[in-house]
Amino acid sequence: MSTDPALTQVFVSELLGTMILLLLGCGVVANTVLPRVKGAGANFLMIGWGWGLGVFAGVYVSFRSGAHLNPAVTVGILSSGAAEYAPGVPVTLTSTLTYFGGELLGAFLGAILVWLAYRQHFDADAPAGIKLAVFSTGPEIRSYRHNLLTEVIATFVLVFVILVFGETPSGLGPLPAALLVVGIGISLGGPTGYAINPARDLGPRIAHALLPIKGKGGNDWAYSWVPVAGPLIGAVIAGLIASAYTA
Amino acid sequence: MSTDPALTQVFVSELLGTMILLLLGCGVVANTVLPRVKGAGANFLMIGWGWGLGVFAGVYVSFRSGAHLNPAVTVGILSSGAAEYAPGVPVTLTSTLTYFGGELLGAFLGAILVWLAYRQHFDADAPAGIKLAVFSTGPEIRSYRHNLLTEVIATFVLVFVILVFGETPSGLGPLPAALLVVGIGISLGGPTGYAINPARDLGPRIAHALLPIKGKGGNDWAYSWVPVAGPLIGAVIAGLIASAYTA
Amino acid sequence: MSTDPALTQVFVSELLGTMILLLLGCGVVANTVLPRVKGAGANFLMIGWGWGLGVFAGVYVSFRSGAHLNPAVTVGILSSGAAEYAPGVPVTLTSTLTYFGGELLGAFLGAILVWLAYRQHFDADAPAGIKLAVFSTGPEIRSYRHNLLTEVIATFVLVFVILVFGETPSGLGPLPAALLVVGIGISLGGPTGYAINPARDLGPRIAHALLPIKGKGGNDWAYSWVPVAGPLIGAVIAGLIASAYTA
Amino acid sequence: MSTDPALTQVFVSELLGTMILLLLGCGVVANTVLPRVKGAGANFLMIGWGWGLGVFAGVYVSFRSGAHLNPAVTVGILSSGAAEYAPGVPVTLTSTLTYFGGELLGAFLGAILVWLAYRQHFDADAPAGIKLAVFSTGPEIRSYRHNLLTEVIATFVLVFVILVFGETPSGLGPLPAALLVVGIGISLGGPTGYAINPARDLGPRIAHALLPIKGKGGNDWAYSWVPVAGPLIGAVIAGLIASAYTA
Repeated sequence: MSTDPALTQVFVSELLGTMILLLLGCGVVANTVLPRVKGAGANFLMIGWGWGLGVFAGVYVSFRSGAHLNPAVTVGILSSGAAEYAPGVPVTLTSTLTYFGGELLGAFLGAILVWLAYRQHFDADAPAGIKLAVFSTGPEIRSYRHNLLTEVIATFVLVFVILVFGETPSGLGPLPAALLVVGIGISLGGPTGYAINPARDLGPRIAHALLPIKGKGGNDWAYSWVPVAGPLIGAVIAGLIASAYTA
Repeated sequence: MSTDPALTQVFVSELLGTMILLLLGCGVVANTVLPRVKGAGANFLMIGWGWGLGVFAGVYVSFRSGAHLNPAVTVGILSSGAAEYAPGVPVTLTSTLTYFGGELLGAFLGAILVWLAYRQHFDADAPAGIKLAVFSTGPEIRSYRHNLLTEVIATFVLVFVILVFGETPSGLGPLPAALLVVGIGISLGGPTGYAINPARDLGPRIAHALLPIKGKGGNDWAYSWVPVAGPLIGAVIAGLIASAYTA
Repeated sequence: MSTDPALTQVFVSELLGTMILLLLGCGVVANTVLPRVKGAGANFLMIGWGWGLGVFAGVYVSFRSGAHLNPAVTVGILSSGAAEYAPGVPVTLTSTLTYFGGELLGAFLGAILVWLAYRQHFDADAPAGIKLAVFSTGPEIRSYRHNLLTEVIATFVLVFVILVFGETPSGLGPLPAALLVVGIGISLGGPTGYAINPARDLGPRIAHALLPIKGKGGNDWAYSWVPVAGPLIGAVIAGLIASAYTA
Repeated sequence: MSTDPALTQVFVSELLGTMILLLLGCGVVANTVLPRVKGAGANFLMIGWGWGLGVFAGVYVSFRSGAHLNPAVTVGILSSGAAEYAPGVPVTLTSTLTYFGGELLGAFLGAILVWLAYRQHFDADAPAGIKLAVFSTGPEIRSYRHNLLTEVIATFVLVFVILVFGETPSGLGPLPAALLVVGIGISLGGPTGYAINPARDLGPRIAHALLPIKGKGGNDWAYSWVPVAGPLIGAVIAGLIASAYTA
C-alpha cells in the first residue's frame, strides 16, 4: 500500500515545508533583534521555541515527502543505508538532489517572506550585522575549526535522534522533531546560532545577497561554508552510528 | 454516523470557544501591559503562550462545530472547496454567517470578561493606548500596506497548516492548532501583534468602544479594517493553495 | 469492568496528587521570589509552567480517584449532575467530603515540603509578605468584590473546560489539564495570583500559620475567604453551564 | 514476545541516552552562564526546558534499556521490588551495575562534548566557579544537611511519579518524563540546582577534573557526595512508597 509520489511532489512538499520552517524560524529572530518589534526584550528561549515550532508546522506541511526540511536529514538517512527517503521514494542520486533542491529553494523563499513581513523593521536604522543575523547564522567567537565542531556536534544530535525515532512507537506526530529542535537550539546554539541545516543557512544568505534590503552589509560568504559542512559531517556520523545502533 | 447539529449548536459552540480564546488571549496581554499586574516584566514569549493556550482551551470547548474560532479559518475552508465546515455542517451562506456571528459575538464577550477580571488594573492610571492594546491589535510602525501584508502572510501560515492537518494522522487533539498559534505569534507577531483573526480584533474593539473603561481613548477605527481584511485575504490564498496541494 | 476503590483509596490518591501539585506549584513561586534562589530573575511565565507541570505530575499520581486535586473540580462535577466522581466512585456527601479532605491535607503537606526544600531561603532575610506569597495567593490591588470576581472567572474557565474534556476524544493524558492551568495562570493570574482552587490556597495558609517560619508575618486571614469562595462559585456556574452545553 | 537484549546492549543504550541528556543539559547551562554566548540574559526557565528536552531526546535514544538515564531511577525500580528493569532485563546485581556504568560513562562523555561544543567560551575569561557550574551542581547556600534534604525531596518526586507512570495509560512517549523534569527543575531547583541524578553530577565532575579546561578551579569534591546520596535516598523512599501505593 505504499504510495509512490512523483519526485515533483517531493520537490513541492519539501519546498513548502522548508519555506514555512524558515518563515517562522527567521521570523522569530526578526522579532527579537530588529528595531521596534513587539518581541524586543525577549530572550533566547523564545528563539528556541520559534525555530522548534517552525519545524512543527513545516513537518505537517511536508508530510508526503517524509518532511526532511534539511539536507542534513537527507544525508543522514542516506548514510544510514536506508532504502527509502519516505514511503515510495527510493534513495537515488536524483531523489537526493530533488530533496536538496526543494529544501534550498524553500529556505530561500521563506527568508524572502520574512523580509516582506518585517519590511518596515528592515527599513529602520539598525547595524548591518543585525539585519544579516535575521537571515543567516554567525558565530559569537569566530574560529572556523571550533565553529565547525559545534555545528557537527549539534547536528549529530539532531540527525541521530531523528533516525532513532523511527525505531520507537509514537503517536506524537511532528512534536518530537519540534521539541528536539527546541532543545538543541537552547542547549547547543550558544556559540554559532545552530544552523544544523545547510539549507536553513545558505538559502537565506542567498536571499540576503539578492534582496534590496535597506542598509544591508556583506553576506559573510567567508563563514558560509561552516553551516553547510558542519551539518553534513554531523549527519554522516549520525547516520553511520544510528545504522549500527539500531541494527 | 455523522451527527447533524443544528446551526444553533454551531453558533453556541463557536461563541463559547471564541469567548474562551479571547478571555485567555486578551488576558495575557492584560497581564503583561496593564499597571500593577503580577505578570509585569514578562516578555513576548508569555504572550505567545497565552494566545496559543487560549486556542487550546477554546478548541476543546468548540469541538462540536469543528472549532473554527476565527472567520479566517471559516473562509479558508470555504475557499478550499470543502463540502462541510464540520461533520454534518454543510457549507452554505447561512452556515457561514452563523460561524461568523458566533465567532464575533464570542470575541466580544471574551473581551468583556477580561475587562471584568482586570477591572481595577483598567481603572488604574495608564496611557489610553495601553488599555486599547489589551483589546485590539495595532502596528508598531503604521503603514496600511505593509501591515496588511504582514497579516496576510501570518494568516496564510495559520490557515494553510490547519487545512493540511486534516490530511495527516494525529492523536494530538487541539495541541497542533495551539502550538501553531504560539509559533506564528512569536515569529510573525512583531510588526502588527498578529490579529490573524478578524473576530479576535473586531469583537474586542467594539467592546472597547462600548465599555465604560476609565481613561480610555479612541478605538483606532482607522486601522480596524487591516486586521479584518488581511486575515481574510491570507485565508483565501491558503484555501486555494491547500486545495491544490492536498488534491 | 469498573473498579470500586474504597474511599480510603480516594483519600490517599487525592492527598498524594495534591501534595505533588503544591510541592511543584509553591516551589516555583519560592524559586522566583525567595532570596538567593537560582531562579531569581525569572518571570511570570516560569510560574505559569511550574503550576501547570505540578498539575501534570499530580494528575498522574492521582489517577485512581480521577485526579480532582481541587475542591472546585469536585464541586464542578457535583453541580454538573454527574453520577460519579471517578469510575466506581459515586457522588455522595461522604465521597465529596473525602475528596475535600484529601485535597486539603495534601495541599497542607505539599506546602510543608516546599518549606523543607527551601528551608535556608526561608531563613534568609526577606519581607514577611514574600514568605507568605510562597504559600498563599494575595491580590495586587485589594478589593474583595473585584478579587472575588477574578477568581470566579478564572475558575469558571478551569472547571468548564475540564468538564467539556470528557466529551472529546483525547490521548493526551494529563497534558490538557496541565496546559489549561498554564494558560489560565499566565492569562488570568495577573490580579490575584490565581488560586482557582480552595485547597491550594487554604492548605498552605494553614501551613504558614503553623510552621515556625523565620521572620514570618501574618497569615492574611482577612483575604482567605476570597480564594475559597471565588473558585467554588466559579465551579458551580461552570458545572451548570457545562451540563446544559454538553447535554 | 519479550526481547532479551544482552547487557552489552543495555550498557550502550544507557551510555548513549545519558550522553545526549548531559549534552543538552549541561549545554543549556553553558548557553546561560558562559561568557559571550547567544543565550546570555536567558533565565532559569530556559535551563529548565534544556534539561527536560535533554531527557526527551535521551529517552528516545535509550528506549531499548527502558531509558533510566539516572542511577536514581534504577535504584527506584529496584526498591519498588519490580522484577525487570526493562522488558527482558531482569533485576540482578550485574544488571544493576551495568545500568550504573552506562549512565556514569554516558554522563562523563556528554560533559566532554559540551566542553568541545563550547570550547572557546570555556577558554574565555570567566570565574572558575562559573566553569564548574556548567558541569556539576552546587548549592546557593551551602549546608550539607539542607542541601541533601532538597535533593531527597526533588528526586522523590521524579522517581515516584515515574514509577506511577507505569500504572497509567499513555501515548505520550518520552514527553511525561521530559515535562516532569522541566517541572521539578523550575520548581525545586532553586536551592541546589537539582542534580536529582547521581550520574548527572558525578560524571561531569570527573570530566571537569580530568579535562584541561582553561582557568578552571577546584572540583568541589567536598560537596560531591550530596548529589549522589540525596537522589539515591529519595529514590529508595519513592520506590517503597510507589510499591505500596500502586499495589
